[in-house]
Amino acid sequence: MLVVGGGFGGLTATRALSRAPAEVTLVDRGNHHLFQPLLYQVATGVLSEGEIAPPLRGVLHKQANARVLLAEVTGIDLEARTASAIGSDGAPHVLPYDTLVVAAGAGGSYFGHDEWEPFAPGLKNLGDALRVRARILGAFERADGSGDPGERTASLTFVIVGAGPTGVEVTGQISELARHALRPDYRSVDTASARIVLVEAGDTVLAGFPEGLQRRAAHDLDQMGVEIRLSSTATNIDPDGVDITDADGAKERIACRTVIWAAGVQASPLARTLGEAAGAEVDRAGRIAVQADCTLPGHPEVFAIGDMVSLDHLPGVAQPAIQEGHYVAKVIRARLGGDDPPPRFKYRDKGTMAVIGRNRAVVDAFGVKLGGRPALLAWAVIHIAYLVGWGNRFVTLLRWFMALAFRSRGERAFAVARPDRAAAVDDRA
Amino acid sequence: MLVVGGGFGGLTATRALSRAPAEVTLVDRGNHHLFQPLLYQVATGVLSEGEIAPPLRGVLHKQANARVLLAEVTGIDLEARTASAIGSDGAPHVLPYDTLVVAAGAGGSYFGHDEWEPFAPGLKNLGDALRVRARILGAFERADGSGDPGERTASLTFVIVGAGPTGVEVTGQISELARHALRPDYRSVDTASARIVLVEAGDTVLAGFPEGLQRRAAHDLDQMGVEIRLSSTATNIDPDGVDITDADGAKERIACRTVIWAAGVQASPLARTLGEAAGAEVDRAGRIAVQADCTLPGHPEVFAIGDMVSLDHLPGVAQPAIQEGHYVAKVIRARLGGDDPPPRFKYRDKGTMAVIGRNRAVVDAFGVKLGGRPALLAWAVIHIAYLVGWGNRFVTLLRWFMALAFRSRGERAFAVARPDRAAAVDDRA
Repeated sequence: MLVVGGGFGGLTATRALSRAPAEVTLVDRGNHHLFQPLLYQVATGVLSEGEIAPPLRGVLHKQANARVLLAEVTGIDLEARTASAIGSDGAPHVLPYDTLVVAAGAGGSYFGHDEWEPFAPGLKNLGDALRVRARILGAFERADGSGDPGERTASLTFVIVGAGPTGVEVTGQISELARHALRPDYRSVDTASARIVLVEAGDTVLAGFPEGLQRRAAHDLDQMGVEIRLSSTATNIDPDGVDITDADGAKERIACRTVIWAAGVQASPLARTLGEAAGAEVDRAGRIAVQADCTLPGHPEVFAIGDMVSLDHLPGVAQPAIQEGHYVAKVIRARLGGDDPPPRFKYRDKGTMAVIGRNRAVVDAFGVKLGGRPALLAWAVIHIAYLVGWGNRFVTLLRWFMALAFRSRGERAFAVARPDRAAAVDDRA
Repeated sequence: MLVVGGGFGGLTATRALSRAPAEVTLVDRGNHHLFQPLLYQVATGVLSEGEIAPPLRGVLHKQANARVLLAEVTGIDLEARTASAIGSDGAPHVLPYDTLVVAAGAGGSYFGHDEWEPFAPGLKNLGDALRVRARILGAFERADGSGDPGERTASLTFVIVGAGPTGVEVTGQISELARHALRPDYRSVDTASARIVLVEAGDTVLAGFPEGLQRRAAHDLDQMGVEIRLSSTATNIDPDGVDITDADGAKERIACRTVIWAAGVQASPLARTLGEAAGAEVDRAGRIAVQADCTLPGHPEVFAIGDMVSLDHLPGVAQPAIQEGHYVAKVIRARLGGDDPPPRFKYRDKGTMAVIGRNRAVVDAFGVKLGGRPALLAWAVIHIAYLVGWGNRFVTLLRWFMALAFRSRGERAFAVARPDRAAAVDDRA
C-alpha cells in the first residue's frame, strides 16, 4: 500500500492504518510533516522550523507496518499499478501498489505570472517561511540603514496579496512586529509608521467565514492600522513594488520591498495526471474531482484526498484532509477485513478560526462564534492539540507565552546569503 | 565610536561601553549575535537557529548609547577615520569614527582549494549550519532510499576534516545520530553501520588541550566507532568522496556523500586591509599582529580584537575575544574619563572544553581536568551561562534534556530545495 504525501491527509491515513494487516509506504519529497497552519509563525519569528515540522520517520517510528521514503513522485501508471518517483539520490524508483492514496497537496499559484515569484514569495513550505522571514525582518533593517527617504518608505511598506486565513494571519503578525515587538529595537526609524496593505480579489476578508466574524476580522485589522483593499488584484509585481487594480479598473502603484503571496493555490500536478488517466474532471485550480468515496472513477484501488481534490466544495484547509485521511483508512480497513465499507465521505464541519493579533482572533466552531481573548484561547488549545509531539507542544506554548507576555520573538535570526554562497540551504540533500 | 562585528569580541565591547559617555554604532552583516560554540548543535538538529542567534538589536535595545547597523564593512580609511560599508539595501555607507574597534572574526579557509567548498561545507554561520543539517540528515535518507549498495555505503560515510573542538563535537553528534538517535527511524538500513572518519593534519585531536584530555577524547571517539586519521590531510574533495593522504604520502580514497570542513580558518579580509594600512604584520591565517593593548601601531584610536588578530598565540575561541572586548572597553572608558589606561591585555585562561557524546566530554578549567558526566555538566553550566537571553537559556536546557533523556532531536526538519526555487533562503534581505 502506497501513500503519497506526508501532510495532514497522507499522515492521518498512514497512522489510521497502523493496525491494518498491510504494509504502508509513505512517500514525501520532504523529511517532515508540515503543520502548515502555523507556518506563518515561522515566517514571523515566533516559532522555529522543527516546532512545526516533526520528521515523518520520528512520527511513524513506532508504527511497525509503516515505512518512509524520501522521494518525489512524478507519475502514476494506473494500469501497471505503479508510481514512479525520483529518490533523494536522484535515482528513479518504481513503486508498485495494490492500494494507492494520493495526498500530494497544493502549492502556490501566481495565476500565470510565475515571474512574480522572486518578488512575492508564498507561504507553502519551510523554505518559503525562511525566505519570508528574511524578507520581513530584512525590510526593517533596510529602512533603518538607508539614508534615502524613498527607500525607507518602500522598505516600511508591506503588501500581502490574499485575505484568506494565511494572508490575514501573516498581516496581523507583521502589524504586531512593526507596531510593537520590533519598535523598541530601532533608533533611526519608527517601525510603527509601517504601511501594511492587504489586497483581496473578493469582496471580504476570510471568505467562507460567517459574516459577523468577517466584519470583526476587518475591524480588528483596521484597528491594527492595516489598509484593506477589497475587490482588488495585483496586476504587476516587480522588485520595486506592486500595481493594484480595483474593481473599477483604477490602478495604484505601491512602492514596496516586501510582497507576500497568499492568494492562489494550485493542486499538485499529480491531480491532473490522475484526472487525465482516469477520465476525471480537473478544475481551474488543478484539483481532481473524486467520487464520493474519494476514489477515482473506475479505480476503486486509488484514493485521492486533501487539497488536491475537489469534493463537496470543501475549503483547502487541514480538517477536510484529516477527515478524508481517516475515512479512506476506514474504507481500506473494511476492504481488508471483508466488511462493508462505510458510506460516502461526509465532512463534519469543526469550524474555522484565525488569529489576527495579540488578543485578537476569530473562531467559529461547534456553533459558537468567538472573538478577542476567548477566541485566541480556543485557537491555541486546538492548535496545540493538533501539533505532533509533546516536546513541540511544550516549546510552542512557551514561545506563545513569551510572545504574548513580553512581545518577544525567539526566532529572529536569518541567514544572510553571501556572494560566494549561492544557496544557504543545500540542494544536494 | 564604531564597532565592526557583533560576535563575542564586538558585542562584549559594545555592552561594556554602556555607561561610557559615547555613542556606539555596532555594524554587522548579519542581524544576530552568533553563539558559535553551539553552531554544531544547530547543524545536528539539537537546537534551532534562534536559540543560538539572538538579534543584535534585541540584545542591545535597552542600551541607550548603542545603535545597530546591518551592513558589511568593506574598507577602512585610517587617515580619514572612516569605514566604508555596503548597507543591506546595497547602498554604500561612509561611517566616520573617533574610535574604532574591529572585531570582524574569521571564516573558513580551504587552503587554496575553494573549489572544495560546495562538497565540504564549513560551520561558520547559520547558513552553513542549515546546509550541514540538510547534508547529514539527507545522507541517511539517501542511504535508506537507494537500491544501490555502493550508494548506500557512500551515503553512510561521513568524513570530518579537522579535529579541533568544532570537528570533534560535530563528529560526536554524527556518531550519536547514527548509532542511537536516528536508528529506530530507519527500516531499510542500519544507520549504526555508518562509517565516520575524522581527519586531522596534526598528531593529536584537540590540539591545545592538555595531553590527558586529548587521550581521553581520542579514546571516547574510538569507543563511539569513529576512525581517527592523524597526520593526514584531505588532498582532494569532489562530489563522490575524499582523498586522504597520510604523513608517509600514502593515499586513500574514501567514497562518501558528506564531508564537513572544520579545518582551516582565515581571518576577515579587514585584518589584511588594516595590516597593510598601518604597517602591521599579517600571518599566514590572515591575522593582524596588534600591539599589547590591541591597538594598531601608530593608531591608538583603532583596536582590533578576536579571531582576526594574532596576539600572545591565543586560540581562536570565544574567551580571548570576550576578554579582549572587555579590555578595549576599559581602555576606551579610561581615555574618555582622562584616567590612566589599564596595562597591556592579559589573558586569563578559563580553560577549554569539548563535548564528545552523550555523557562524554572533556573539560580543563580552573586547574581541574574532568571527563565523562561531570565534564558534561560543567560544560552545560558554562555554555548556558554565556548564552544570551533567559528564554534561549530555558529552551536550550529543555532541548538538551530531551536529547539526553529521550535521544530526541527537536530540529530535524530541513528545507528541500525545489528546481524552481534556486535558494531557499533569500539573498535580497
